Amino acid sequence: MAKMTFIYGAMNSGKSLELLSAANNYDERQIPYLSMKSAVDTKGGPLITSRIGIERPVDIIAPTDINVRHRVLEEIELRKLGSIGALLVDEAQFLPREQVFQLFELVKEDDIAVLATGLRTDFEGKPFEGSTAFMTLGDDLKEKTTVCRCGRKARMNARLINGLYVFTGEQVAIDGDAVAYEGLCAEDWLLERAKSLAT
Amino acid sequence: MAKMTFIYGAMNSGKSLELLSAANNYDERQIPYLSMKSAVDTKGGPLITSRIGIERPVDIIAPTDINVRHRVLEEIELRKLGSIGALLVDEAQFLPREQVFQLFELVKEDDIAVLATGLRTDFEGKPFEGSTAFMTLGDDLKEKTTVCRCGRKARMNARLINGLYVFTGEQVAIDGDAVAYEGLCAEDWLLERAKSLAT
Amino acid sequence: MAKMTFIYGAMNSGKSLELLSAANNYDERQIPYLSMKSAVDTKGGPLITSRIGIERPVDIIAPTDINVRHRVLEEIELRKLGSIGALLVDEAQFLPREQVFQLFELVKEDDIAVLATGLRTDFEGKPFEGSTAFMTLGDDLKEKTTVCRCGRKARMNARLINGLYVFTGEQVAIDGDAVAYEGLCAEDWLLERAKSLAT
Amino acid sequence: MAKMTFIYGAMNSGKSLELLSAANNYDERQIPYLSMKSAVDTKGGPLITSRIGIERPVDIIAPTDINVRHRVLEEIELRKLGSIGALLVDEAQFLPREQVFQLFELVKEDDIAVLATGLRTDFEGKPFEGSTAFMTLGDDLKEKTTVCRCGRKARMNARLINGLYVFTGEQVAIDGDAVAYEGLCAEDWLLERAKSLAT
Repeated sequence: MAKMTFIYGAMNSGKSLELLSAANNYDERQIPYLSMKSAVDTKGGPLITSRIGIERPVDIIAPTDINVRHRVLEEIELRKLGSIGALLVDEAQFLPREQVFQLFELVKEDDIAVLATGLRTDFEGKPFEGSTAFMTLGDDLKEKTTVCRCGRKARMNARLINGLYVFTGEQVAIDGDAVAYEGLCAEDWLLERAKSLAT
Repeated sequence: MAKMTFIYGAMNSGKSLELLSAANNYDERQIPYLSMKSAVDTKGGPLITSRIGIERPVDIIAPTDINVRHRVLEEIELRKLGSIGALLVDEAQFLPREQVFQLFELVKEDDIAVLATGLRTDFEGKPFEGSTAFMTLGDDLKEKTTVCRCGRKARMNARLINGLYVFTGEQVAIDGDAVAYEGLCAEDWLLERAKSLAT
Repeated sequence: MAKMTFIYGAMNSGKSLELLSAANNYDERQIPYLSMKSAVDTKGGPLITSRIGIERPVDIIAPTDINVRHRVLEEIELRKLGSIGALLVDEAQFLPREQVFQLFELVKEDDIAVLATGLRTDFEGKPFEGSTAFMTLGDDLKEKTTVCRCGRKARMNARLINGLYVFTGEQVAIDGDAVAYEGLCAEDWLLERAKSLAT
Repeated sequence: MAKMTFIYGAMNSGKSLELLSAANNYDERQIPYLSMKSAVDTKGGPLITSRIGIERPVDIIAPTDINVRHRVLEEIELRKLGSIGALLVDEAQFLPREQVFQLFELVKEDDIAVLATGLRTDFEGKPFEGSTAFMTLGDDLKEKTTVCRCGRKARMNARLINGLYVFTGEQVAIDGDAVAYEGLCAEDWLLERAKSLAT
């Protein structure tokens, strides 16, 4: 019986590294697998990348309006893989709920394991649709934490625009020139939020 | 540093029993605590109840439009408790997101531990607002599972009206005369869903 | 594929209540199961008991020198159960390593789920043979914690003889007239240990 | 309050990668930390290495007969670090129980977090002393799994000598020319064990 596993955490908590490590395990065992990310994630191009210096091409870049279960089964057929050990999904927070439900069916009806990673919360502390769906339907939920500036566990995400913390705006703003993200502990995130909302 | 813990599971997975067991531990240690549930939950009256045959009065019944952080602090003051070991929250799926955020502040700013239990998904497999907020903000997430009719782990909730599985309707329908709920494994839930939606 | 699950914790952390709750779930589903405890545990007689006020007869009381895999299969045969949903094992710390290995084979070769509970450490902070074996071979390890006198999580066990903490002696001394146990947090346990060893 | 965290798993499950990822997080935050491994582990020299292609020098190589709590505090003093974010311990299975207890005191009395990784079982399915001590005293236990040749989760370790599975011998035999290890699921490990013991 295949399982749906969701690894959640703040920015820079090593989530993609978990996928790359799993990919490496399947490679060593010569068991085929596929990887996927949402077309919403424009960062890094067609790669799964980890800050620690490892990357790997991604097999499927999924627009938000396709049936990803069908897309995966099609790709298995196309590549004549027969079956796969797992589907690895990066940046799963960007998937609409319908696509996560399609992956749930892929796990439970087609018996294909899904290992997905995603941000738990956006910069306002609100849920991402894709992550909520995975946390709601997943068999196993695992947390990755990183280190806050104060040394505590970082579980929240703060958005910086030109170096200033901001707590209002669009849910999705891919980090780049002006926009950056920082993992913070709840206490520091609430502190910066209070300061920012007070100005 | 207090923690926000969320125990999630399907119907009849022993979630309230976890709260009653924690209450018992605090009682034995003579450490004060408070319990709360949402006014939305009309079942069982002002009690936390477990199918195994244990129950306990609930201290605070919270309408959805009050600030629950203030309400808890007020109750601590009123009862001259000084401080409490934990706030125990039953049926947390019924809390609006704002109230869960208020409890998050209670944990992180007032250093009061919160232990909440709730259903992970509704009968359509969709997230409850309160549970999503707890899964998004909680420090520790723990799963309780129960047994499906087939012997596997039950993680999904099915709604029965007059003994028939239904997969459309209002999110909240408290179980009573005509309405019942049953924990099912994902496979059996998808099976009953397909049968029901086909008719 | 059946699983071996081990629930560990300090004294009075609600471990047996987990077994009683699981038993209740199987009863409601009318799925047969068996329960077992070691003959080393002379407390409570042929019952699984919880401080919260629930108890249930235990099906198999196992001397340390029998093959428990064979014993369980024999009992299934004897009672004409065909198969069981799970074997529930209380006070698993008292099982010798060989018996835990036999249960591991019961899970993996006979496809029978085992759910066991036990103390993680003895009063000196040393491992129990049975718990170590379960932690070494188990598929899922889950912790139950209780409340220390200071309000923190209790993970260690302290032994009291006539009300005084003691940190030397036999590993097994069933609580009764003179002997009592108390769950403490690591800090308080280390404190009492230092005071006791200093005298 | 610092925590003792133990990450356990079979060979090649990405345990050291977890340490390297944590080290990377501390580096990015410019929070000092120290790393340690046992002198028993002669593989890889004074490095923490991951099969995925990352490595990092190890700060302390500990003989089994020193007090590692004192050694760490001395190193903090020597390097004038003031305090550290964490002590990272690789190949923790090789530490004697006394050293793990010293690290427990380092966490609980000196408030220094310890993150250790180790093999859960030896090739005979028996516990390693160091891992048992960490599983017994740790605040958080996390599992890393890898992939069995059959695609299932690998949790057991098999030893191969010149390509043949062996199930008797010394507990410690560092992999090298003739000796290799392979992570297997319980079912496959029991199968190879039965075949090997039958010959």
